[in-house]
Amino acid sequence: MSDRLGPALGEPIFKRVTIIGIGLIGSSMVRALKRMNAAGEVVACDASADVCKRVEELKIADVVEQDVAKAVANSDLVVLCVPVGASGPVAEQMGPHLKNTAIVSDVGSVKCAVIAAVAPHLPQGVNFVPAHPVAGTEFSGPDAGFADLFLSRWCILTPPEGTDPAATDKVQQMWRSFGSNVEVMTAQHHDLVLAITSHVPHLIAYNIVGTAADLEEVTQSEVMKFSAGGFRDFTRIASSDPTMWRDIFLHNKEAVLEMLGRFNEDLAALQRMIRWGDGDGLFELFTRTRAIRRGIIAQGQETASPDFGRREPPKS
Amino acid sequence: MSDRLGPALGEPIFKRVTIIGIGLIGSSMVRALKRMNAAGEVVACDASADVCKRVEELKIADVVEQDVAKAVANSDLVVLCVPVGASGPVAEQMGPHLKNTAIVSDVGSVKCAVIAAVAPHLPQGVNFVPAHPVAGTEFSGPDAGFADLFLSRWCILTPPEGTDPAATDKVQQMWRSFGSNVEVMTAQHHDLVLAITSHVPHLIAYNIVGTAADLEEVTQSEVMKFSAGGFRDFTRIASSDPTMWRDIFLHNKEAVLEMLGRFNEDLAALQRMIRWGDGDGLFELFTRTRAIRRGIIAQGQETASPDFGRREPPKS
Repeated sequence: MSDRLGPALGEPIFKRVTIIGIGLIGSSMVRALKRMNAAGEVVACDASADVCKRVEELKIADVVEQDVAKAVANSDLVVLCVPVGASGPVAEQMGPHLKNTAIVSDVGSVKCAVIAAVAPHLPQGVNFVPAHPVAGTEFSGPDAGFADLFLSRWCILTPPEGTDPAATDKVQQMWRSFGSNVEVMTAQHHDLVLAITSHVPHLIAYNIVGTAADLEEVTQSEVMKFSAGGFRDFTRIASSDPTMWRDIFLHNKEAVLEMLGRFNEDLAALQRMIRWGDGDGLFELFTRTRAIRRGIIAQGQETASPDFGRREPPKS
Repeated sequence: MSDRLGPALGEPIFKRVTIIGIGLIGSSMVRALKRMNAAGEVVACDASADVCKRVEELKIADVVEQDVAKAVANSDLVVLCVPVGASGPVAEQMGPHLKNTAIVSDVGSVKCAVIAAVAPHLPQGVNFVPAHPVAGTEFSGPDAGFADLFLSRWCILTPPEGTDPAATDKVQQMWRSFGSNVEVMTAQHHDLVLAITSHVPHLIAYNIVGTAADLEEVTQSEVMKFSAGGFRDFTRIASSDPTMWRDIFLHNKEAVLEMLGRFNEDLAALQRMIRWGDGDGLFELFTRTRAIRRGIIAQGQETASPDFGRREPPKS
């Protein structure tokens, strides 16, 4: 890729970084930290012996360690890359073993619940800088990661009040070194923004795939064959990691239900337009939605290629 | 592309074919007919003088004709590639000028309404073989078309009772020559299948993009920046042609409302699971939906490449 970044010269941002949970995001961070020389030493930690074995085979980390206490000792930055529901228990395990000047971060898709679960377990002096890289694919596990995953994507930081700005700054530097844009906002606002840009879209994708699977009049074979008319795009989203997404919905309940309420209101209005044959109303909405997409393409978060080049996928 | 088809040897399937409406699908058919040598002569007809001028510049058709009566004279096959709502009026215009052995077809995304609108205008002896190629991109107009659009996609034929099987067979041959798989079913069943695999997915995509655009708490700029979390996939679908989609919803009202009712029921159940913290129920659904996607990939209607290779779009 022509805009792939090269390693930084000079001192790494952190001497020793521990990544806990080596899935898609965790293994991508391990790879990016090494490639960008953002950490002097990278420790990969996972509760699963199988994952640890695989990470050793992949040779992407300097140290692989199954035990959380050992993995975090002497680390300057510890990043939780576990499902949101596991953040609290892992923080409890590692708390007593953290270096007293350590920075703790995470990559969870919800922030208020993670802060509430993690912060109480962190010793005095440790700074918590929650982060959410808005990037991903529908694949999971250590093999699915790649160092370029965060390139040109946004990473949102939500440091709670009282966090040392120097800690926030170092975490920000690390994400910038991965090629990400960084924005700082409150955890509350993050959870609302992501409810509409990510959580509710996933929910309705899961939902329509479920609806289609349960029909009696239309066979599953027909649903699959004729999926090119729009449905298949939803199946990609609806094949994301079930544990991760269960935890997101359980831990961002309020914002998701609020946004879902608005979605439902709007859908009821649209349903009514169809029932009453309000062609002008439909046309107006269908025209208005195009502008948003133009904005997304202009901001570099999407390509304008028709059909995403599905006819000729890149060799990977 | 390695699996691009080459032109057939020998006699073309039709001596003269007229395509009415030179948008994405119409212009792709014109190109495919020429490349595959499926027609001796291809007439491109469009009500817009600008489109006719552009088609002449593109040099993709043998004849370009703005007048429908002249365009259909002496043609063995006439294909309506106009928005569903325009099918009736165009059929009325062309009816008296059709060759008495002609075959008429279309490419509309709804079939019952098109048959009801078109059939009454066709003279005795003319066979109507409605078709729906389940293929497309979010782009419109004569420049957006390409001959490979139909390759490996499904085309559904819905010949009404009494249609000469020889006519159905010739239309089928043409679609096969474009590289499509062909399935024959009733118009009623088609409209139900497409309601769930295409129409309702488009409706909820348009809807969520509209909901996101109307929020006060989240800015449009935030929606665009953080769209990589799922939302951007919906904006692609929600930027499809507004006229075409208005007509689809107005003309497949019953099936769309039926499928939307089921979608809403299922969504209400999901909403309840979130409200009551039913993690097991969520996990069960999120696991079940993965199987459908595996089927779609196995059937060649999608690639398994993560993120559709969005990071490195093919040069086009």
